[in-house]
Amino acid sequence: MIFINFKAYKEAFSRKALELAKIAENVAEKSGIYIAVAVNYLDLPLVAKSVNIDVFAQHIDPVDFGSFTGAVNAEMIKEYGGRGSLVNHSERRMKLADIDFCVSKLRSLGMKSIVCTNNVSTTAAVAALKPDFVAVEPPELIGSGIAVSKAKPEVVENAVASAKNICKEVKVLCGAGITNHEDYVRALDLGADGVLLASGIVKARDQKKALEELAGLI
Amino acid sequence: MIFINFKAYKEAFSRKALELAKIAENVAEKSGIYIAVAVNYLDLPLVAKSVNIDVFAQHIDPVDFGSFTGAVNAEMIKEYGGRGSLVNHSERRMKLADIDFCVSKLRSLGMKSIVCTNNVSTTAAVAALKPDFVAVEPPELIGSGIAVSKAKPEVVENAVASAKNICKEVKVLCGAGITNHEDYVRALDLGADGVLLASGIVKARDQKKALEELAGLI
Amino acid sequence: MIFINFKAYKEAFSRKALELAKIAENVAEKSGIYIAVAVNYLDLPLVAKSVNIDVFAQHIDPVDFGSFTGAVNAEMIKEYGGRGSLVNHSERRMKLADIDFCVSKLRSLGMKSIVCTNNVSTTAAVAALKPDFVAVEPPELIGSGIAVSKAKPEVVENAVASAKNICKEVKVLCGAGITNHEDYVRALDLGADGVLLASGIVKARDQKKALEELAGLI
Amino acid sequence: MIFINFKAYKEAFSRKALELAKIAENVAEKSGIYIAVAVNYLDLPLVAKSVNIDVFAQHIDPVDFGSFTGAVNAEMIKEYGGRGSLVNHSERRMKLADIDFCVSKLRSLGMKSIVCTNNVSTTAAVAALKPDFVAVEPPELIGSGIAVSKAKPEVVENAVASAKNICKEVKVLCGAGITNHEDYVRALDLGADGVLLASGIVKARDQKKALEELAGLI
Repeated sequence: MIFINFKAYKEAFSRKALELAKIAENVAEKSGIYIAVAVNYLDLPLVAKSVNIDVFAQHIDPVDFGSFTGAVNAEMIKEYGGRGSLVNHSERRMKLADIDFCVSKLRSLGMKSIVCTNNVSTTAAVAALKPDFVAVEPPELIGSGIAVSKAKPEVVENAVASAKNICKEVKVLCGAGITNHEDYVRALDLGADGVLLASGIVKARDQKKALEELAGLI
Repeated sequence: MIFINFKAYKEAFSRKALELAKIAENVAEKSGIYIAVAVNYLDLPLVAKSVNIDVFAQHIDPVDFGSFTGAVNAEMIKEYGGRGSLVNHSERRMKLADIDFCVSKLRSLGMKSIVCTNNVSTTAAVAALKPDFVAVEPPELIGSGIAVSKAKPEVVENAVASAKNICKEVKVLCGAGITNHEDYVRALDLGADGVLLASGIVKARDQKKALEELAGLI
Repeated sequence: MIFINFKAYKEAFSRKALELAKIAENVAEKSGIYIAVAVNYLDLPLVAKSVNIDVFAQHIDPVDFGSFTGAVNAEMIKEYGGRGSLVNHSERRMKLADIDFCVSKLRSLGMKSIVCTNNVSTTAAVAALKPDFVAVEPPELIGSGIAVSKAKPEVVENAVASAKNICKEVKVLCGAGITNHEDYVRALDLGADGVLLASGIVKARDQKKALEELAGLI
Repeated sequence: MIFINFKAYKEAFSRKALELAKIAENVAEKSGIYIAVAVNYLDLPLVAKSVNIDVFAQHIDPVDFGSFTGAVNAEMIKEYGGRGSLVNHSERRMKLADIDFCVSKLRSLGMKSIVCTNNVSTTAAVAALKPDFVAVEPPELIGSGIAVSKAKPEVVENAVASAKNICKEVKVLCGAGITNHEDYVRALDLGADGVLLASGIVKARDQKKALEELAGLI
């Protein structure tokens, strides 16, 4: 499984968000790998109805409908065709009670939650909340080009073990520094169910080629 | 001038956001009053291209393009046809340096800034940042149905005086509890350039009638 | 075990903090119950050297020594005789990664961590971080005078079960609305190792009598 | 005027906080310059009663007495002999409404407020709140050893002009990178009333010598 976080990158916004989502859809078809994208709020309505892969939000606010200026909640994402959301990304850390609120809310709406964590112990903690996915990303490797699966294999292995030990249904992704097929395969070998990545694809000179390479097509 | 903040109200989201924006457009035409709406991120792309009135975001994050998961910046709002943004709404208070960043950014992009404040002294402070609008809203009256222009006329008068004293071009709105035409007229009499309101219109049983009444059409 | 959180109550600040800590020390001696107090930073140095019971901070910042204006870290609390700290109190919620940082730091310094949570699932999550104590406090009952052990016994029971299931060494406290000996005994009956309370003692007309009653001395 | 921010530096904590405060007192006497120190909460009680110079807090929370676990308010600082507080330091940025609350509260208690800002426009904004001091510190120079008064003289000049233009009583400090007497004199020449500094003194190999040099004694 491959999740691509478009972040607030210019190279994955507006028209380019749609293009990259189409690339992801194409590579998913050709490779048979599950690929999903997490896009900007403004892009989500159009992207979600234009591609056949799962489209996620990058964040949701821990609120219901109501007097919450500027907020986007899970119900709204669902209304526009989003399948779920990243929660607690390292660039958007949340309070524990709010993570719990979002995971519960997403579950109750039949949506998927991908909760990001920074190490083994927070991965275990999040597993206890029973999200669909935990994505462990050592902050020092994010955007570094140094793959967590290569530089810190023990973090991936221990994160998988401790998460599954607490909740065996939870799927574990690893992120931070993932760039190529070798990093991806290594992550799977270490027990991860998939990878979460961003700059490795979004900032690649040739996004299509980068994703095809990641997926093992070339 | 009338600014309607749709907040995260179910009654002003998705299909209903578009309907209410159309109502606002219609009342603006009939009354000759400038009316603008501040909508949810997810609704903004469609609403902005469907109506001839100004469409604003309810919040922007104080960042440029880049590695900012979940963030929406001013450039993105502009790309999708938004004319500007609310900044520092009482339900989304910001740090001073971030307010300054957003006001400057919006100005440099030719977009409008509406900075919300809670009292006379913060209104003066914000005026020094030279936004297009300052909207003073005593927090205790927000959503109360008790109009600030009636309950605390001195707040409106003093906010206007202190803001214009620091920056005479800044326009001053008043908010909190505004519901009907009388509240609106009173706000203008006190020196305000317009009003910012939300529940008074959005939560009205008949939104069209409520806005027509506010605008003095009935 | 009884933990008394002095909060920022005037009735438990400065001279009154010392008096209440002395009362706690006295009741601990007479009753044989472990009683500890969590005091304001400014009061901690004097209180910690004046009583023979454990004195805790109410919060610590997730930082080491360095360029962190206004911050108080675990090392500082230890230097002044504090035995540990509350972490993630409902009035001072923290990000998950920061809770983890503080629990690890306190453990490595030989200090005690008491992490507050708001429900059963966050209690399980925190247990995975292996703090010394988890204190579950349903937010709606805090300061209500309605004891969680009476109003929501299932929350206490399930919190204890889910926490011990994940980490059997972790001790579970319950808080929110605890006022008298009956509430306390009921909490122990439900499997809790003790209680965390504040207003029930601090705001009592007679603090000494209130604590003696709580401890079953009268 | 010289304000020394001890931050959370180990070199200015506990026993060393008292030593450095004594050095500051001594240099103030010998030089005739007003020197004040901003110390850690835990150190404040002892330092405030041990020296004859003004002792400040590094931050205060925007609350009154009450149910605010972990909070320290202005009244508490006053009770322990503090003369005022830094507000909105770059390492502890606050929301605008909270800055306003703290400045008003400090004023009403007869205490001094030193509000930190990051550029000319936020300095003007803060001047409208009428604090005792505004301390402008371009974030990129903090801790850099490159003095703002040398590297960005126009920031200091413009900050002074815009602040005094809005409130002529407000005193303007400049900070960031100030290390030696030349930087200090230059700041005064640019119209500043004094300087706010931290690492330049606290992290100096010989704190006494560094402060004496800054004050022009050697």
